[in-house]
Amino acid sequence: MKSLKQLKTKLPETVKLEKNKVYIIDQVLLPDKLKFIELKNYQQAILAIKEFNVRGAQAIGAVGAAGLYLASKKYFKKDKNEFVKYLKKTGKEIIKARPTASNLSWAINYLIDNLDNSSVLNIKKSILKNYQDILKTEVENNLKIGKFGEKLIKKNYKILTHCNAGSLSAIWFGTATAPIYSAWLKNKKPFVLIDETRPWLQGSRLTAWEMKQVGIDYQINIDSAVGYLMSKKLVDIIIVGADRIAKNGDVANKIGTYPLALMAKEHKIPFYVAAVKSTIDFKCLTGDDIKIEERAPEEILKHTSYWENKNLAKKKTKSIDPLLEIAPKGSQAFNPVFDITPAKLISAIITEEGIIEAKKIRNLNN
Amino acid sequence: MKSLKQLKTKLPETVKLEKNKVYIIDQVLLPDKLKFIELKNYQQAILAIKEFNVRGAQAIGAVGAAGLYLASKKYFKKDKNEFVKYLKKTGKEIIKARPTASNLSWAINYLIDNLDNSSVLNIKKSILKNYQDILKTEVENNLKIGKFGEKLIKKNYKILTHCNAGSLSAIWFGTATAPIYSAWLKNKKPFVLIDETRPWLQGSRLTAWEMKQVGIDYQINIDSAVGYLMSKKLVDIIIVGADRIAKNGDVANKIGTYPLALMAKEHKIPFYVAAVKSTIDFKCLTGDDIKIEERAPEEILKHTSYWENKNLAKKKTKSIDPLLEIAPKGSQAFNPVFDITPAKLISAIITEEGIIEAKKIRNLNN
Repeated sequence: MKSLKQLKTKLPETVKLEKNKVYIIDQVLLPDKLKFIELKNYQQAILAIKEFNVRGAQAIGAVGAAGLYLASKKYFKKDKNEFVKYLKKTGKEIIKARPTASNLSWAINYLIDNLDNSSVLNIKKSILKNYQDILKTEVENNLKIGKFGEKLIKKNYKILTHCNAGSLSAIWFGTATAPIYSAWLKNKKPFVLIDETRPWLQGSRLTAWEMKQVGIDYQINIDSAVGYLMSKKLVDIIIVGADRIAKNGDVANKIGTYPLALMAKEHKIPFYVAAVKSTIDFKCLTGDDIKIEERAPEEILKHTSYWENKNLAKKKTKSIDPLLEIAPKGSQAFNPVFDITPAKLISAIITEEGIIEAKKIRNLNN
Repeated sequence: MKSLKQLKTKLPETVKLEKNKVYIIDQVLLPDKLKFIELKNYQQAILAIKEFNVRGAQAIGAVGAAGLYLASKKYFKKDKNEFVKYLKKTGKEIIKARPTASNLSWAINYLIDNLDNSSVLNIKKSILKNYQDILKTEVENNLKIGKFGEKLIKKNYKILTHCNAGSLSAIWFGTATAPIYSAWLKNKKPFVLIDETRPWLQGSRLTAWEMKQVGIDYQINIDSAVGYLMSKKLVDIIIVGADRIAKNGDVANKIGTYPLALMAKEHKIPFYVAAVKSTIDFKCLTGDDIKIEERAPEEILKHTSYWENKNLAKKKTKSIDPLLEIAPKGSQAFNPVFDITPAKLISAIITEEGIIEAKKIRNLNN
């Protein structure tokens, strides 16, 4: 039996507050370099979300909340009503940074809805407290997901995951990775199969980085190898995260999740989604109501994605031509970022309140 | 109505024989540059297959046959029996160049089984004639596939394909592309959706190149976007090629074909395999008997695939570091090249003899 403390020495927090300063892991530098950057104002928080220094549902929520906290810290006027108005306006600006992540608006609303607006000072104090609450509670939630989800994992299980719903997508511990880390803590020796996750390769870069940090055995495959892996009985269980969950249990997650779930059903392999309640959008009745973000065709058509370019540029590896084309010049590409997995394909959703049938997820609205 | 002649001005032959010299399109230079290379001896034919200057079931078969023809051309001894022995030995050597392509052994066997071994000269003549037969017959076969398959395509249909089972994978006209080209010739304005096809990106590079050459509209997507595309009703029909077909109708094709077929069934989208009879291996009773080639993990783990490296090296773009890692150093990857699509998921197989139910493909053994 290993301890959480041991895990903490290997796996750093993705978003942290130290002496009232906000730090995040710069994910565009991974897996090459682990570096923390300080966010000094809310504009930097927005930029960090937009430029993918941070990504992943919970982490985006936390950085959004950090942004609002930083905005409050830098507010020096005396009118408490003006202050609340300013925070609401700034909150709306932050929410626009990425459309699909439900946790972003949830986190901003949590900070604003729980304000003590009796004075400017108390507004500041309560914003900080609410932000700290989110950091603390979301990690506790993920530990609970780990506790529930770990029971699904037998010794030496081969667990397949898509994209990164790991510690890097959260404040710490992750959602899809929570059962894996909990199983590892109990010496169950999980073996992780990682979809590389085109076009951004979050699997190859981020999930693989986490597993390597912790010392969990893993193997990377192309996304479309999942059929072969399952037909050869090389997968025991699948656990993925979620970017947004509709009231009926349909799940929006990284593109490729839906084919994975359908294949799992064909091969009778359990398919779980791990997510905190803040990922559920009760205003979305079904998956059809979830707007799917589309990104630039260049991420598919050019040799390096925007992310890789940034990464390489930061490393000052000037030897890469960022415009090197894969496809013939002038080609069109279609680049949706998420797809919708219907509730019927999901064995269950692992939440902080327990393992819940997808179609019963509506009952968590309390 | 357009003519085949018009198509020929746009789309060059992949393997050709001119004044008894063998030329192939060098596919590692595509889509950047269209260049023909002459194969001067059988060792160069083997190398062209191994180093992927040529790939695709029919094209590999044709280049294998070209290799045996070149070996015969360069044989100057007098003993006809020794000559036959030499050709058989060389044929075996050529067949080893790539294991999964059924057409390679089929083509070599066709040349040897139809020898006129009455004299050294007649052996030479018959090898050339048999080789010419293959070039001619396989193109005729593909034109027949086009004629039959075109009937499945309505005006403005959106046709999804995986990898490249196009003209570049054949001698000319392709297999999966044959119905597309035939529909284009009839002014049906097909729109082609192309899976990029990791890790080698044959879709983005080769199929897109063919469509651009001919002037057919196309759009590239990542392989795991197929679920989203079908759920949004953006696909009318799917046509893919085959590397090997088992007697029971199971199909080995580029990895990712199986998830595509399963998704098509879920969405009731017709899923066709286009292949010539020489792709059928009647000795393989089911897909389980087909050995799946696994390739180097580096194709997935490193920034550029071997193919891209070669490509870039040939272009003398020295600015790319071929060893740039995507995943953390020391990562493992699993890189199977093909998967098996069960016959039950296939609407039918389009062959030169007509459109045949997958499970009835055994009847072609005559």
